[in-house]
Amino acid sequence: MNKEVKVNYERLLKNIKDLGQVGRDDKGVLTRLALSESDKAGRNLVVSWMREANLDIKIDKIGNIFGIWKTAENENKDPVMVGSHIDSVINAGIYDGCYGVLSGIEVIRTLQELGVNPEKPIVVAAFTNEEGVRYQPDMLGSLVYVGGYDLDKALDTIGIDGTRLGDELKKIGYDGESEPGFIKPYAYLELHVEQGPILDHESIPVGAVENLQGISWQEITIEGEANHAGTTPTKMRVDAGLAAAKVTIFLRDRANKSNGTTVSTVGSIEFEPNLINVIPSKATFTVDLRNPNEDMLKTEEKALEDFLKQLQKTDGVKISKKRLARFQPVIFDEDLVNKIELSAEINGLKCRRMTSGAGHDAQMMSRICPTAMIFAPSIGGVSHNPRENTRDEDLVAAANILLSVIYDISKSK
Amino acid sequence: MNKEVKVNYERLLKNIKDLGQVGRDDKGVLTRLALSESDKAGRNLVVSWMREANLDIKIDKIGNIFGIWKTAENENKDPVMVGSHIDSVINAGIYDGCYGVLSGIEVIRTLQELGVNPEKPIVVAAFTNEEGVRYQPDMLGSLVYVGGYDLDKALDTIGIDGTRLGDELKKIGYDGESEPGFIKPYAYLELHVEQGPILDHESIPVGAVENLQGISWQEITIEGEANHAGTTPTKMRVDAGLAAAKVTIFLRDRANKSNGTTVSTVGSIEFEPNLINVIPSKATFTVDLRNPNEDMLKTEEKALEDFLKQLQKTDGVKISKKRLARFQPVIFDEDLVNKIELSAEINGLKCRRMTSGAGHDAQMMSRICPTAMIFAPSIGGVSHNPRENTRDEDLVAAANILLSVIYDISKSK
Repeated sequence: MNKEVKVNYERLLKNIKDLGQVGRDDKGVLTRLALSESDKAGRNLVVSWMREANLDIKIDKIGNIFGIWKTAENENKDPVMVGSHIDSVINAGIYDGCYGVLSGIEVIRTLQELGVNPEKPIVVAAFTNEEGVRYQPDMLGSLVYVGGYDLDKALDTIGIDGTRLGDELKKIGYDGESEPGFIKPYAYLELHVEQGPILDHESIPVGAVENLQGISWQEITIEGEANHAGTTPTKMRVDAGLAAAKVTIFLRDRANKSNGTTVSTVGSIEFEPNLINVIPSKATFTVDLRNPNEDMLKTEEKALEDFLKQLQKTDGVKISKKRLARFQPVIFDEDLVNKIELSAEINGLKCRRMTSGAGHDAQMMSRICPTAMIFAPSIGGVSHNPRENTRDEDLVAAANILLSVIYDISKSK
Repeated sequence: MNKEVKVNYERLLKNIKDLGQVGRDDKGVLTRLALSESDKAGRNLVVSWMREANLDIKIDKIGNIFGIWKTAENENKDPVMVGSHIDSVINAGIYDGCYGVLSGIEVIRTLQELGVNPEKPIVVAAFTNEEGVRYQPDMLGSLVYVGGYDLDKALDTIGIDGTRLGDELKKIGYDGESEPGFIKPYAYLELHVEQGPILDHESIPVGAVENLQGISWQEITIEGEANHAGTTPTKMRVDAGLAAAKVTIFLRDRANKSNGTTVSTVGSIEFEPNLINVIPSKATFTVDLRNPNEDMLKTEEKALEDFLKQLQKTDGVKISKKRLARFQPVIFDEDLVNKIELSAEINGLKCRRMTSGAGHDAQMMSRICPTAMIFAPSIGGVSHNPRENTRDEDLVAAANILLSVIYDISKSK
């Protein structure tokens, strides 16, 4: 690794800002939903930058874009892939996803300008429909790419606006011919803003992401007895709202005792009849449980289940639950994580190992090749919001770590 | 007191059932909203029964009906008044209110048939708009009667159907000429079904109601910080929903420690943004606090206030509160309560002192004369519902207690 090798920070920052102007409405609100006309404009801009770097452009059948830098000497080797996505949520910031794709292009241009002849091709990827706002599930492009979701089923997906994914893909001209999975990477790296507050809070410029939380989503319904708030003695109450409060407190207690590994959230709740002077007969609420370790996530789920059983006895309520989603944790490649740490050390940057709390294309790619992620700090942890922000020097610093790691890998035989 | 004196139970039960047929729709649903055509039909039926008992009918300017039994010997004495209301909620049962009015008529008829010559007139009252469903506030007729609410303002009240109370009163022909408060009772007694589960649960047929809970209604808004449910470490969360759960638990703990005097209810709640994977930025919920002792109710309010202040510090949330309603407790007349207990004892019926958790006309009448209430058990505590029910033998037993107490008071000089 070489700390003298640096990306062209002016070009990188300019490209991020330019792409961030594509998809704004009259009021300046940025929305670049997957396969929309705005997404098409964003894709065209990204492809134009790939062309400037003389990359070979390939589009696969789910619309994932690949810009390939290969030479006559290395074209038979498995390439190193860098990627992310450029689709956005509604009313988005400019960094989520785009930062990773544009840094990938920048890394290639920097290496080209340095006259480096890498031992392996370097590919930059922009995956389709990562956000999952217009079409479900999210991370669909990378999921199809790794063979985790049927291509035809994906093309038949109906969006929130009633459109068929395959039709919209064709309409914007990104219905490519390559088979998903046509490139088997030697390694995959994704640079992304943290979307959480940890690096910012600890003033650490680089995160070496070693794993990605498993996620357990459940909806819990507690049934009690609606009764008069004035005439019903405390001992005779069967209060569904109180039982829901006990679950909320229990979950936080568990999270507090987990030494920072478990996070839990009761994000939505509804009472029936929801009247000031009637004891709630029903409380329906969601539980979002996350842990980077599958066994520990299972332990948390079991602890909740046991607590609910106990609550049925102590509070006389009836409880049912419904699984809404469940994803196993992802463990990233230890060698790659070490390389990220080492690169940060050489560059004199503080770095911490961390867990990704959000989903990323990298979790899909990790199914087919060694994978890791690099995080740059998000100011205040703001995400999926126009106030999403990362300082320019942090954007550049983490991009240089990516450059350094890619350079290192691409040199190896 | 004389345990041999008994009401005509067949007549009482038949009248309750007959009045309970007035105001039913095609599907058999009973709704007799204040001053509606159904209320008019119910009033006419009640007045016809008062006429059968040769009572002198007076209607006051807010539509309260008084059936007066007086003799040449006692007409200058302050009368004993028995009363309640015959208006109902939507989809009502047949006992709430009606039981008290019809038992009053029955008590007078029984005493007449026994040839009793009371020392004081006996008056049975049916107050206007007790339920407060069509016109706010509830207990309006008795409140105006005792001078607690301006008559003209009451007549100008606009109902949920856009009607003016005074117009509707005139339309049904119950815009009387007597001035509210024209009778100053020697004492007021109200017989009512409990509307709560205590007597039924403890298998006690008679409740001697010694007081009526004070009520404190507040709406509390807790503001936290919306953040990603996956990427935000537990220590950095400002979770408005968790803080609301802590308040709920705190209130129940206080109620548990109050030895049965305080009841508290968090009956309604709303989160923002109310999404499964976002930490709640706002929780708005109601607190219904009740206690029959004003000092203790104030103590509970203060304890809640202190807890909220502490929560602002410990949880980093911002809390605001809004008073929605506040009623002081009502203490009934000790002598009358003693008389109810004594009468039950003489009649060989178990009796317990109790607090009314719901509002009644008696709480208004207590402002102008010694007042107490008698409760009969409600099966399962069901109230304001067609499933409201009280066993015939319990209806008759408590009516006999009323008879016995009225007989006793009316004999005194």
